[in-house]
Amino acid sequence: MTVLSENFLDRLRLEEFFAEYVACLDEVRLEDWPEFFTDDGLYGLWARENSDAGLPAPMFLCRNKRQMKDRVTSYREANIYPDHWNRHLLSATRITQSDSSEIVAHSNYAVLQTRQDGETFIYQTGRCADRFVRNRSGLLLKERKIFYDTLAVRTLFVLPV
Amino acid sequence: MTVLSENFLDRLRLEEFFAEYVACLDEVRLEDWPEFFTDDGLYGLWARENSDAGLPAPMFLCRNKRQMKDRVTSYREANIYPDHWNRHLLSATRITQSDSSEIVAHSNYAVLQTRQDGETFIYQTGRCADRFVRNRSGLLLKERKIFYDTLAVRTLFVLPV
Amino acid sequence: MTVLSENFLDRLRLEEFFAEYVACLDEVRLEDWPEFFTDDGLYGLWARENSDAGLPAPMFLCRNKRQMKDRVTSYREANIYPDHWNRHLLSATRITQSDSSEIVAHSNYAVLQTRQDGETFIYQTGRCADRFVRNRSGLLLKERKIFYDTLAVRTLFVLPV
Repeated sequence: MTVLSENFLDRLRLEEFFAEYVACLDEVRLEDWPEFFTDDGLYGLWARENSDAGLPAPMFLCRNKRQMKDRVTSYREANIYPDHWNRHLLSATRITQSDSSEIVAHSNYAVLQTRQDGETFIYQTGRCADRFVRNRSGLLLKERKIFYDTLAVRTLFVLPV
Repeated sequence: MTVLSENFLDRLRLEEFFAEYVACLDEVRLEDWPEFFTDDGLYGLWARENSDAGLPAPMFLCRNKRQMKDRVTSYREANIYPDHWNRHLLSATRITQSDSSEIVAHSNYAVLQTRQDGETFIYQTGRCADRFVRNRSGLLLKERKIFYDTLAVRTLFVLPV
Repeated sequence: MTVLSENFLDRLRLEEFFAEYVACLDEVRLEDWPEFFTDDGLYGLWARENSDAGLPAPMFLCRNKRQMKDRVTSYREANIYPDHWNRHLLSATRITQSDSSEIVAHSNYAVLQTRQDGETFIYQTGRCADRFVRNRSGLLLKERKIFYDTLAVRTLFVLPV
């Protein structure tokens, strides 16, 4: 009989969480997106170039769930942008901290985007640094920091990563 | 001692299945491809654009294993197409149903293709919706529906996804 | 209570190993890279085209850990190349052999690269064939053979895959 370590269980929990999270985004169910976060959850994007150089200013930041909801409203009602579909690929999730209340994990990601012309291109690659809190029903994001490699972003950061 | 839930076990079973499935395709062992399906298995491709708009006509469909074998024969003997290699990336597998006889799961995929000029490009991204039946030796596909994002397909659907 | 098979445990061990390995490379902590190998570890790259045709000559080969360290030194001190960041995606890991001392596994990979112009492109796709030895603290690579699809390599093989 093999005992499964908590670390391996966390790995499976994260895969399950990311599968739900990514499906929400790629199916453009944006109204559900803030529900993956705690009420005081933080979501932000940083250019890797700036971050590596010690420049802490984010390209985009939501400091709590209410700001995320505003973001979704402006996407639905105000922003102008070309129609597009995103497709997330996540890989190489690395658990860097884990205790009875939190998990910290880093993952590589790529977002491949398709526009109206039907071509698919690399919209963005990078690393996400996620801090999760455990609760009875599973995991919630307390922090999701995106460090993107792709500086030549072809549109505004319209859809969340 | 930690009890591993059936859902986590299914996740590992699916990863094992997909690893074999993808290796079969990317190594162009096409004659083995129909063996991943039940005799009455269905394999089809739909443009996401059409599917989202409620248009149910597939771009390509095999209604059983015999039709898949025909497909492989025509690939080997009749089709004309540029030489190419596919490389599948799968991510974010989401189990949406599971009981003692079946598993339904959705995954994101990308197929990166290399042609004779040696360049690699994004051939196709999308989502696959798979229905598996459990049998003694593992899992078999009863249904594999591919919903592709990339409308500007650069060749006919020569190799299966 | 479900018993987890050794094969599933190996799958989780490999995911953990690859997450550390990939982070080391993508964060350009190259001095740590040889430490993933045994002292007599082999690291090599082969063009898939040549390998499929039975031509065994590698494009690049390190026959032990000392040669890997030399490689890192020449990267840091001698090579001239455009600044770039790599982002690895791994998928479809397939365990082909496993016993009490070793694991052999094949995985699909893509390396997406970003240069100074801020654009991200597909640098290379392929398959890695890895032979691991088990030791007390986990796994070490005894052999990592990379078979790359992308023949039109845009720079020298500056960074390891």
